This record gives sequence, C-alpha cells and structure tokens, in this order.
Amino acid sequence: MKKIVVIGGGPAGYPAALQAARLGAQVTLIEKHKLGGVCLNYGCIPSKSLLDIAHRLEQVRVLGALGTDGAAETVEKLIASRDWQKIQARQQKATAKLVQGIAFLLKKAGVTVLQGTASFIDEHQVAVQTEAGQQILQADGIIIAVGTEAFYPAPFDQLRGEILDNSTIFSMKELPHSLAIVGGGVIGCEMADLMHTLGVEVHIIEMQPRILPLEDENAARILMQQFAKKGIGLHTGVSAVSAHKTDTGFELVLSNQEKIQTQAVLAAIGRCANLAELKLENIGVTWDRKGVKVDPQTLQLKNNIYAAGDVTGLMLLAHAATRQGEVAASNLCGVPAVYDNTRVPRAIYTSPEIAAVGISRVQAQAQHIPLKVHKSFFLANGRAVAQEMTDGYVEWFSNAETGQLLGASFVGAQSTELIAVAGVALQAGMTVEQLKKVIFAHPTLAESLGEALAR
Amino acid sequence: MKKIVVIGGGPAGYPAALQAARLGAQVTLIEKHKLGGVCLNYGCIPSKSLLDIAHRLEQVRVLGALGTDGAAETVEKLIASRDWQKIQARQQKATAKLVQGIAFLLKKAGVTVLQGTASFIDEHQVAVQTEAGQQILQADGIIIAVGTEAFYPAPFDQLRGEILDNSTIFSMKELPHSLAIVGGGVIGCEMADLMHTLGVEVHIIEMQPRILPLEDENAARILMQQFAKKGIGLHTGVSAVSAHKTDTGFELVLSNQEKIQTQAVLAAIGRCANLAELKLENIGVTWDRKGVKVDPQTLQLKNNIYAAGDVTGLMLLAHAATRQGEVAASNLCGVPAVYDNTRVPRAIYTSPEIAAVGISRVQAQAQHIPLKVHKSFFLANGRAVAQEMTDGYVEWFSNAETGQLLGASFVGAQSTELIAVAGVALQAGMTVEQLKKVIFAHPTLAESLGEALAR
Repeated sequence: MKKIVVIGGGPAGYPAALQAARLGAQVTLIEKHKLGGVCLNYGCIPSKSLLDIAHRLEQVRVLGALGTDGAAETVEKLIASRDWQKIQARQQKATAKLVQGIAFLLKKAGVTVLQGTASFIDEHQVAVQTEAGQQILQADGIIIAVGTEAFYPAPFDQLRGEILDNSTIFSMKELPHSLAIVGGGVIGCEMADLMHTLGVEVHIIEMQPRILPLEDENAARILMQQFAKKGIGLHTGVSAVSAHKTDTGFELVLSNQEKIQTQAVLAAIGRCANLAELKLENIGVTWDRKGVKVDPQTLQLKNNIYAAGDVTGLMLLAHAATRQGEVAASNLCGVPAVYDNTRVPRAIYTSPEIAAVGISRVQAQAQHIPLKVHKSFFLANGRAVAQEMTDGYVEWFSNAETGQLLGASFVGAQSTELIAVAGVALQAGMTVEQLKKVIFAHPTLAESLGEALAR
Repeated sequence: MKKIVVIGGGPAGYPAALQAARLGAQVTLIEKHKLGGVCLNYGCIPSKSLLDIAHRLEQVRVLGALGTDGAAETVEKLIASRDWQKIQARQQKATAKLVQGIAFLLKKAGVTVLQGTASFIDEHQVAVQTEAGQQILQADGIIIAVGTEAFYPAPFDQLRGEILDNSTIFSMKELPHSLAIVGGGVIGCEMADLMHTLGVEVHIIEMQPRILPLEDENAARILMQQFAKKGIGLHTGVSAVSAHKTDTGFELVLSNQEKIQTQAVLAAIGRCANLAELKLENIGVTWDRKGVKVDPQTLQLKNNIYAAGDVTGLMLLAHAATRQGEVAASNLCGVPAVYDNTRVPRAIYTSPEIAAVGISRVQAQAQHIPLKVHKSFFLANGRAVAQEMTDGYVEWFSNAETGQLLGASFVGAQSTELIAVAGVALQAGMTVEQLKKVIFAHPTLAESLGEALAR
C-alpha cells in the first residue's frame, strides 16, 4: 500500500488526500491550523456569507419603493440595524459546518489527519511537530499544498499585525468607520463592496491604471463605474509611498502626494507562499514568494514530490487548487491525469458579479487568434427587466474562422453561476452553431447566452 | 419574394416572423390583442416580476435575525407595508418595456404588424378584421401561432368573468384576503407561492394525488412540504363538484364533501386553444381544445401551413413556442429545421425553484432505459451553506450502461438558471466522464453539478 503524505488541509490538500485514499493509498494529511485552509476559514466562504448580507441589503431597497408610505424609511432603518457581531456569528457557523464536513469526509475515507507543522527531512521523510512532540512520517509520495498568506511589501511590512488582511478582517471586533484597501484585485474589490454596503467609508488604492487588472477591461470598467457611483474612493495608477499610525488610525501617502486617513487599512496586495518552515532545501528545491515551479500539467515538483494549490502559482483560486490536488494525487498513485489551467473559471462576487472562463481578449490578441465577440445585454432580457437586474451582459468569444467557442466573460446577476454553462460548452468543444441549438428556459438570465449567439 | 403571414404575436409568432424576415420573406404578423402574447402580458413576465417581490420579501427575513434589537419587527413592518398598486405598476412597466422591445425588433426586421382578428379564407388567403375594416392577405405560407387561454371546465364554466384566471389576476384592483386555486400545475403553484407571500390565505385544489403531477415526484414532494410548512392549504386527489358565489366570495364543494370558502377563485386548470375564430374548416383542418395536430419535428400542419406554440399541444412553454416558431418559419422559407421536444427545459419559479430537462425517471422506466441517478444536496455546498440556501439538490440522470447524460432535475435556489448547464451538456451529447472534467467555480451552487457526478 502506497504511503502518501499531504502537507496542508486546504482546498488543494484535502481533495488530494481524498483522491489518494480513493485510489487505494494510505494517506496522512498534515494541517498546521484549520482544515479548509484560507478558502474556508479566511476567504471564499466567510466573504460569501458576508457578501450575501450585503446583497440582501441591496435587494431590500427595491421593497422600499414598493411599499406604502414610510416603507422607504423602514428599509433605511433595517439597513442601519445590521449587527456586525451577529453577521460574524452567522459566517462562523457556516464555516464551522463546512470544516466539520471536510473532517467527516477525511475520516470516512480513512485519511489520518495530524495537527502540526511539517518539514522535509528528505524526499521520503517528513517531520511533523505536533503538540505531543515530533513524529517522522515515511512517504512514498508527498504533496505540498501549504497555500499562501497575505503579502506585506514595503511600506506595509512594518505594520504587519496592526493593519488587516484576509485572515483578520472577518474577525475584527467592530466595523471601522473608514477603511483603506491596498490592492484593487479580486479580494480588494469584494471587500470594498462588502464594507461599503455595511456603511464603512472605503478607499481602494491600486497601482495599475484600473481595478481588476487581470480581468476583462469592459467588466472592470463597469465595476469602476458602480464603485464610483456608490461613493467608493478609487485611487488608481498610484501606490502608497509611506504608511504610518496616527491617533485615530492610519495615514497613507500616495505616489501622487495624496494623503488618505482612515481608521483601518486592509492589505490585499498579493499573496506569499507558506513555504518558509517546510525546509525545501532538504530536498534541493528552491522557492520564492510565488511558490515552487511544477510541471503545469502533471504538477510534479521532483520525483515523488508534487505540489498543488496556491504554491504552484498557476492560478490562485480554490477550485483550481482542488483540481490540482486531485490531479497530483492521481499521478502519484499511478493514474495519469492532466491539469488544464486554461479551463479554470474566475468568479468575482461584487455587485454586479463578474465571471469569466477560457480565452480573454488580451490572450487572443497575444496568440493571434481571430476573435469574434458575441454580446447580449441584460437590458433586453425578460427576467432581468422583470426583476430590475438589467446591469449586465454576456460575451462569448469564438474563433472567427472555425466558429469554435473559446471563452466567455459575463457581468451581472448570477454571472458566477452562469459561467458554468460556458465551462461545460468549452469542455465539450462546442461551436457557435452547436450551442445555438440549445433551448434555454424562459424567462431566465441564461437566455442571454443563446441570444448573444443569435446575432 | 415569399409572402408569409404569421397569425399571433406571442412567443411563437414574433420569433417566427423575425426568422422568416431574416430568411428574406415579406412578412405580415397579425395580432388580435397585444404583442408578446400571454407570456409577456399575462404569464411568464408579470408573474416573475411579482415572484421577484415575493422572493425579496423572503430574502429580507434573514436580515431580521442579523440586526440589532428591533430588526425583526422592522422586517415585519416592511413586509406588511407592501403596496399591491405599486407592485402592479412595476410589473406593468417591465411588461410595457418588453412589448416595446418586440415592436422595435419587428419594425427593424421590416415585418408589417396588423392589429386585428384573422381567419382563413383558403390555404392562401387570410382575412383580417381590423378597426378600419377587413383586409385580405395573400400568402405563400401561413404560420398559426394564436396560443391558448385559460380552460373553464364545469363547474367553473358558469363563473367565467367572475373568477380569476391568468389574464386577470395580475391586474386585480386589490389583493383578496383568501384565494382558492383550482389546479396544482405550474401556474397554480407559482400563484400559490406568490399570493401566500403577499399575505393571502391560499388553498390549492388538485385532482391528481400530488401537485405538479407532470414533474419529478421528489421535486413535487419537496414543494408540497414547503407549501404545507408555510400554511398553504393543499387539497390533492379531489376535484370541485360545485362552485357558486356567496355574499363574501365563493364556495367550492369538493369531491370529498369538504367545503372551501374564499373571497376569490383562480382557474389554473388547463389551457384551451384560441382557434374558434380562425375558421380552420375553410382549410379542412380539425382541432380541439388542445389545438391542432402538426408534424412534431417540422411543425407542418398542411401543405404551406404550419403551427407553432401552445396550439401544437407539444409543450405549453414560451421557450418551446419560440423554438417552434423559428423552426416553422425556417421550414416554410426552405431552410430545413427540426424541432426537438425532448430538449425543452422546464422551469418553475416557486421557492424553492424547480427545473428539469431531458429524460425523467418516469420516461426512462417507460422506455426501459437503465437509469443511473447522480445526486448532490445543497446541504454540502459551500455557497448554499454560506448563504443559507441549503434547501435543494441536483440530480443528473445518465444511461447506466453507456454513461451518457440523459436528463437532469434540480430543486433549490437558481435551479431555473442552472438548468441551462444541463441543457448544454445534453445538446453536446456529453457523458458523465466528460462532464466530470469541467472545473466549476468555487463557491457556486453550480459546483453541486460536478459534485453529483463524483459519487
């Protein structure tokens, strides 16, 4: 029986452990902190529980306009009544439930879970420092899935522990009255939307000329417009040159000399691989902040050692991590599997939601692929009009010569769910003509996916 | 240039007209009442605008539990403040906007729209009675897309005009305090959910042993449980043997001797084809309440005469009508097209939502297809747990021998949107193994679609 050690119990590690167990291995999973990793404890799940509240608060505004006299005031009163402690408790309950679910799945699969800190002795031995002392595990195969944590470049490095990051923002005791978010990527934008809706004055500082620099420009522009309309402070194309504490919070000085004073600061600048304690030098592997270099298809790092999740630097998303974990475990167990980084959907839970999969405009241009864009606006969609959700659109990208569907970019309600339709169409290798044959239910937002191709 | 006459401007007729125009025909569309038909004016769209309010009212309850003291009371106050006039006005605005959209599309496509009542003179001539008088249209091809209206069997036939149906419920002046809904099909269930959430005491009377008799039994059972929990009166396996007016409304006597007294009654018993004025005898075509008999693939009725939409009796859904209209127009214009009734999704906008596409358990059994059911519950889904939307599940149906996906049945939040994923997978002819390769974004409800297949 093959002995597999998985280091890290997050969205890469626990599916890797389950997959290895499924394929007959004897599996030990080492988790330093909490099963579920950043995603479940300090990321995807707590943020979605909180964003759900923000979303419900937005939903309720419509009711103010559809009630008898005084309904609008009632709505404002309800919005003002939000209780951060209760909202947090709800999020913690959801997280705890899902962590329990993972523990249950691992137990059922016969995976041994060790709470402790792992380090390499050599390619076949892992030391685990637990509360009870040190253990040495023998392994035929090892999967590194230790994840990342918030990156603190200068000038924020000296404020570590004083400013917020994703691991502390969900458990802060009280909402600040104002918050500077450093970094306008996915985490920064989701937190900006959330905190603004909860009544916090929000500023985003982004070094690139626009927020969401890795996403489609049209989508990012719409979000920027929404943010500006809501009154979120957008400081793009600038960076913080200094940051220090004040009597009432923090002051950031930006590269354009602008000064921003807020009660709290959130670092959402980038991620840093949790590899410092792993003693990778003992297996002759080098690493940097972005992680280790694996084969991007097999996820092999070296001989019997694989890596999965954020530490591969391929795609810092939970579902990419999960697929990577499964692929790594399969390959280690002798069942060849391939990871495809081009098929990973991206989902952003702002209002409006943004999602994409497959090729982007920028990639198509770089690869000299003749791209045809098929677009449909929610303004012409029956459900969107009936439910006042017309801010949004769908775009399909196809090869203008062959008609093959290559990618999709959606903005608006349910985009994060609808992107699954595009994922399936791409996986099936469908063409525009094939997809046009699909009958979409009426009235649904999904109809726009067919409508876009009809033009 | 081919002259095409389309009779009816609903979800079958207007797409038929657009398709014929696209294929180079000279098209006249005759609409007796309003463009958009029942779907847009008295069905899908108004009901979804109203159900959206019901949904928002439900959404808001969560906020009561997450606010400071008094928030729960504020929520109740908000719910009680709903104003039926304003809710109606919102629905009418959405409908008007979409009707305008259709008028614009038809105009842009060069389709002549005549407001009037059509009847056949012979297979190449249609008489149109307009306000200005009678016109005779010469036609190379004719598409019948006149739709259906509510069916009033005994004992309700004598109460026509006094009780409600889908064409009057959305414009009633005030909400009744109590409502008996005769018929527990899709319309009956959606209206029950809506009216209950708006504070109306609701009773459903369904002759079959359960509501939604045409849908999956598991899905219908969940809805019955929800309805019972909410306090909606469920009277299944019984029919009304008599119905008469009382001082305060109506009294229905059921086949089990039970008496139901309500202020209003809604007939949602079935549909009746609008063929009475069309003089089908002049072209030698017979018809009954369910419509006319067409070729189910080409939609040809007779020579150069086609039918589309509810009057074919194939599938009384707007999106089926639209596809039928397009197929009929294509075939009339010499571009062969085929309609596939097995690929029409079904969507029910109750709480929870219900949706299905492809083969059902019952059909598989009848066709002796060995069915494998792949199921995943929202209880194990991260987004559902984080957002308190765990009432639901997804089921895929595959051929147990070949692994080919044959159908899907979903219950829960966003089911009506997610069913599009299944529609695309079926259209692409995917197998379970192929679909398992899709990476679904985390955290989404759509992940359950992959999760179900992993078991």
